[in-house]
Amino acid sequence: MKQTIPVITLLTDFGLKDEYVGVIKGVILSINSRVQLVDISHNLTRHDILQAALVIKGAFRYFPKDSIHVIVVDPGVGGKRKVICLKKEGHVFVAPDNGVLSLVTQDGKADEICAVSNQAYFLKPVSNTFHGRDIIAPVAAHLSKGIALPRLGEKLTLDDINTLDMPVPLLSSDEKLLAGEIISIDHFGNLITNIDQETFEIFTGKKKSGTVVIGLGSSRIQGVSESYDTVKMGDPLAIFGSRNLLEISVNQADASSYFRARVGLAVTVEILTRKN
Amino acid sequence: MKQTIPVITLLTDFGLKDEYVGVIKGVILSINSRVQLVDISHNLTRHDILQAALVIKGAFRYFPKDSIHVIVVDPGVGGKRKVICLKKEGHVFVAPDNGVLSLVTQDGKADEICAVSNQAYFLKPVSNTFHGRDIIAPVAAHLSKGIALPRLGEKLTLDDINTLDMPVPLLSSDEKLLAGEIISIDHFGNLITNIDQETFEIFTGKKKSGTVVIGLGSSRIQGVSESYDTVKMGDPLAIFGSRNLLEISVNQADASSYFRARVGLAVTVEILTRKN
Amino acid sequence: MKQTIPVITLLTDFGLKDEYVGVIKGVILSINSRVQLVDISHNLTRHDILQAALVIKGAFRYFPKDSIHVIVVDPGVGGKRKVICLKKEGHVFVAPDNGVLSLVTQDGKADEICAVSNQAYFLKPVSNTFHGRDIIAPVAAHLSKGIALPRLGEKLTLDDINTLDMPVPLLSSDEKLLAGEIISIDHFGNLITNIDQETFEIFTGKKKSGTVVIGLGSSRIQGVSESYDTVKMGDPLAIFGSRNLLEISVNQADASSYFRARVGLAVTVEILTRKN
Repeated sequence: MKQTIPVITLLTDFGLKDEYVGVIKGVILSINSRVQLVDISHNLTRHDILQAALVIKGAFRYFPKDSIHVIVVDPGVGGKRKVICLKKEGHVFVAPDNGVLSLVTQDGKADEICAVSNQAYFLKPVSNTFHGRDIIAPVAAHLSKGIALPRLGEKLTLDDINTLDMPVPLLSSDEKLLAGEIISIDHFGNLITNIDQETFEIFTGKKKSGTVVIGLGSSRIQGVSESYDTVKMGDPLAIFGSRNLLEISVNQADASSYFRARVGLAVTVEILTRKN
Repeated sequence: MKQTIPVITLLTDFGLKDEYVGVIKGVILSINSRVQLVDISHNLTRHDILQAALVIKGAFRYFPKDSIHVIVVDPGVGGKRKVICLKKEGHVFVAPDNGVLSLVTQDGKADEICAVSNQAYFLKPVSNTFHGRDIIAPVAAHLSKGIALPRLGEKLTLDDINTLDMPVPLLSSDEKLLAGEIISIDHFGNLITNIDQETFEIFTGKKKSGTVVIGLGSSRIQGVSESYDTVKMGDPLAIFGSRNLLEISVNQADASSYFRARVGLAVTVEILTRKN
Repeated sequence: MKQTIPVITLLTDFGLKDEYVGVIKGVILSINSRVQLVDISHNLTRHDILQAALVIKGAFRYFPKDSIHVIVVDPGVGGKRKVICLKKEGHVFVAPDNGVLSLVTQDGKADEICAVSNQAYFLKPVSNTFHGRDIIAPVAAHLSKGIALPRLGEKLTLDDINTLDMPVPLLSSDEKLLAGEIISIDHFGNLITNIDQETFEIFTGKKKSGTVVIGLGSSRIQGVSESYDTVKMGDPLAIFGSRNLLEISVNQADASSYFRARVGLAVTVEILTRKN
């Protein structure tokens, strides 16, 4: 007897003041009351598709296979953009086709993609201002009851869907400098860069004898720490955080205040070797 | 075999910092662990009964029939106000009798109303500061297990319960102007008016040949748009939003900042006809 | 047939912007999808172990027996502090050993305590920055499936675990004054003191004929009210709140603004008797 309860996660920029998130859950439960609804976040900056892309990429693999991930960061609602459904590694995503799934499919892989156009699974009438309620939520609920993707609409490929231009870390022409940037700042003030551990290790692996120096504005941090408490309380450090990205933190304090840092600020990695 | 799980929604002004919302859920789950708990909002402005009334009216019909809606915006807690239970269209509401259900019953209809006075369904001892925990939550949990309304307390009618004075749109004596106001501003900065689509269409239907002009302070918007992207990014528009109320928005931006608007600001609708 | 669904509560300082809370829930549901997940709060001040201790103490008894309470306020993550599991009154707590359970065990009682060290129940690899995800969440999920505490790690006693220095109310040497302080300010601006009803009644019980006067800075409040509406709207009062602690409130307004009060401010209780 299968006892697993389908999980539907929700990621929006709706905030938690209005009834919008609750209404989406009501629509889902009206179709399937036997689901686990999980909020990933509703406090994304309004219309910030890139943050949504980062968050869903960082989160989805921690959920059970067969989870359905609803993403409604949708500045183009009511316009010409499609709604799409995408399957990958057993996870199902329903989202506007505005690039919000760019990082989930960054490896060029998806198991199945379709347009969401079959109105049989929509709430009626469909408004022009709230497709999260009228299209995405009911489709997610029907998916949790087991309908197959092809019933939703025409088959698509990765080439058919929109992607974001993501900032990627760059290697200087002399290969002495890896240049990334801050792509996100979390609730604790940790500065999350776009330098992933693999890229970092390939870069630093070439010069094992030297000292790694992380640069942020005019500040320099020597080496990458294994845990926050390797420096004194209130001191800065670099560390690979829970997303496997290089982060600049301050032990038990807020690095964004400490460095007056913002998203987009350049972060560099250099290997210093002794002169003689 | 019926597998539907009862839904209990929660709408409060408790905020999300303290343990208050969690405690209410704990009380409910201690009585019935097989429920779906859904937050509608806990970030209503403190003691703002009108906003709570707007939100629950805009939300409840999206939930399954038999849902139980818990509303705790209760500045009069511990005083003389009653707690009431009201049934309408298969939905059940438990709330303080302070007018918060005014808009749910705006059409003059309710299937069943009773006072909540039977202490058999209360937590003991009942505090004078937190009836949400001690009365409303346990009563909602018992309702989810199937107890009938008459067991809660004496029968009431709509005339027995308190209602709010709601601002309604007014027609000028020459019938040339429909005058409403902003009643709510959402997370996106959309300005939600009290002009519903039906009232609007009756008004404008009389003068189909003219141009509809929406006025807000010294600003004028021509016509009502079908979707946000009918104007350029950053430009204002009028649109019927997801609550079927006329809203003033700015495409992909914040209308409340754009217009420096507040709740209570007058919004007018006029039909301009050519002079000759 | 047992139909009770295990409850897992979550109390963190993660905020609701990032994916961290969602990820913790994903980890739990990947191990046991048949649980009720309840947020107690995620908006604790960052690293504020004392507030977390107050909140969990004030909340846990409202949840069903056998609930599992996950607490992740963990400034020392990745350092030398242990993770512990503690059982008391049928409730199970999983938390860093940083004193966050000090108030739960203030009465010197716990049924069972163990270190959490058995990696069989951890997510792999274990990061040094997010033990909430990698250790505490999966352990809580396994506990909800019925594993016994001794499987998690070595047995501990109350003497083995860390406790906070809690501010306690003090009696002046002449026994004329009870001196406490504000330990928390809630969303409504209520000022919550560390003077519990029992201590208060023992103190005032000695001088029943006099008048109780509560002092806060240069302000004085006469007597303790039974409910908010015993004073006019906008007037201050003292009342025993929902945590059974003495609170300073303002009827339908914000006492923290009214008194410009902060956590740590002294609150005194005196009995005034007539001169003749």
